[in-house]
Amino acid sequence: MNSIEKLLNIQEKNNSILCVGLDTVFNKLPNHLQAMPRGILDFNKKIIDVTKDLVSSYKINFAFYEQYGIDGFEFIKQTINYIPKDILIIADVKRGDIGNTSTAYAKAVFEHFGCDAITVTPYMGEDSVAPFLEYKNKLTFVLALTSNKGSNDFQKLLVDGKPLYKHVIEKSLTWTESDNLGFVVGATNPEELSGIREIIPNQPILIPGVGTQGGSISETLQNNKKGIALINVSRDIIYTSDEHNYEIKVREKAEFYKNEFNKYR
Amino acid sequence: MNSIEKLLNIQEKNNSILCVGLDTVFNKLPNHLQAMPRGILDFNKKIIDVTKDLVSSYKINFAFYEQYGIDGFEFIKQTINYIPKDILIIADVKRGDIGNTSTAYAKAVFEHFGCDAITVTPYMGEDSVAPFLEYKNKLTFVLALTSNKGSNDFQKLLVDGKPLYKHVIEKSLTWTESDNLGFVVGATNPEELSGIREIIPNQPILIPGVGTQGGSISETLQNNKKGIALINVSRDIIYTSDEHNYEIKVREKAEFYKNEFNKYR
Repeated sequence: MNSIEKLLNIQEKNNSILCVGLDTVFNKLPNHLQAMPRGILDFNKKIIDVTKDLVSSYKINFAFYEQYGIDGFEFIKQTINYIPKDILIIADVKRGDIGNTSTAYAKAVFEHFGCDAITVTPYMGEDSVAPFLEYKNKLTFVLALTSNKGSNDFQKLLVDGKPLYKHVIEKSLTWTESDNLGFVVGATNPEELSGIREIIPNQPILIPGVGTQGGSISETLQNNKKGIALINVSRDIIYTSDEHNYEIKVREKAEFYKNEFNKYR
Repeated sequence: MNSIEKLLNIQEKNNSILCVGLDTVFNKLPNHLQAMPRGILDFNKKIIDVTKDLVSSYKINFAFYEQYGIDGFEFIKQTINYIPKDILIIADVKRGDIGNTSTAYAKAVFEHFGCDAITVTPYMGEDSVAPFLEYKNKLTFVLALTSNKGSNDFQKLLVDGKPLYKHVIEKSLTWTESDNLGFVVGATNPEELSGIREIIPNQPILIPGVGTQGGSISETLQNNKKGIALINVSRDIIYTSDEHNYEIKVREKAEFYKNEFNKYR
């Protein structure tokens, strides 16, 4: 089964477009886990246990693990092994380099770590993204319009009267004939999402920025116009409690988001 | 000593602006090393042994190591530990994400791996680059105009009559008051380099694209107008021979490039 089929199946099975971001770092763990060398892994496993029937995907931002060096990569690997096989796993790594280098990144994420999807950055153009798209059974999400303040710096600059991020979307569409291309569009830009859906009515869109970053759920989903979407929430779910039994509140929060998203889609 | 001082010192000591890219992968090693589990590490150490008096820096492209998972990170770590302390170490990783995530990437590269410099991608704007620039004693190279064909896709699009990469350079200059900001400009664009040097006469520029990628040395250095530069050569030096005594040809090739660069600077 390829990644897009996997995504559609699990969205139906769990009736959810929620993606939980496993942005796990030691100093935000509940107190009793902070001193444990494998605290991050124990925490991730518990999060997965209590949310796996509420989500359609998990997003692992490698940065948070890379800062711990080799231990961190072990945590990524073991977290991935623990995720049920029918849930989409997104490597949020924002990679992109000249061709032979992107090929190596693709191997790392799709083959070594066995992820189903990846986020990539478009600045270096076609040959930096093509090696990811060559994995036709995987999903590649190209950054279009991100959720952070800095998205104003370059992504919205006008080229021939049209913002750069629209050029990125339109150009990227010419790089694959398969249904293995998606985009990242932040929830902090709901009105722009509407314009983006006019260009790509049904391409998968990974939407970060709800929760701690403040994007509006109702506006985002109204502007998504029923296209395939994954809405990511990281910190506001996984760090919702620092109690010993944090998993109870984590599940409540995940359930809240799942249901909230379903209200508007 | 901060990274820019380190760079200037070693460029003077070794009379060299050569950067050797350690893009080491198993299937390109000399035959006798391919079957050895630590072949990559033995190879890197030998390359360093025979070039350390000819270079001012080594550039490690993490992608090539990441594809081997945890072993690969061990190779990076041990390669870095082996490099003499007065030579600049560049982590060529092209990272960039929202603020708290870029902070984690910066920790990984500058603190865990102990590199002196990093390459970052500008697409997500100021808050994605600022966490790297907060390390004032390190060097952050922002991608401006890269050496690959895909650099035509977005980097050269005109915004208000000026290519995007010039906007990237001008905007980035407002993000730090320290001398810890450099740029990546590919040698495959020598005529554009001249225009870039008008904006940044002396900021450090990391120049890939000479060698296998075909950039002209004389044109590149004439257009660099004597600004601080590091010219990277990877494959054309490290894979110059697959003989048992490959190190002899590696040294000859590194010496050739060092001297060739010195002719024109």
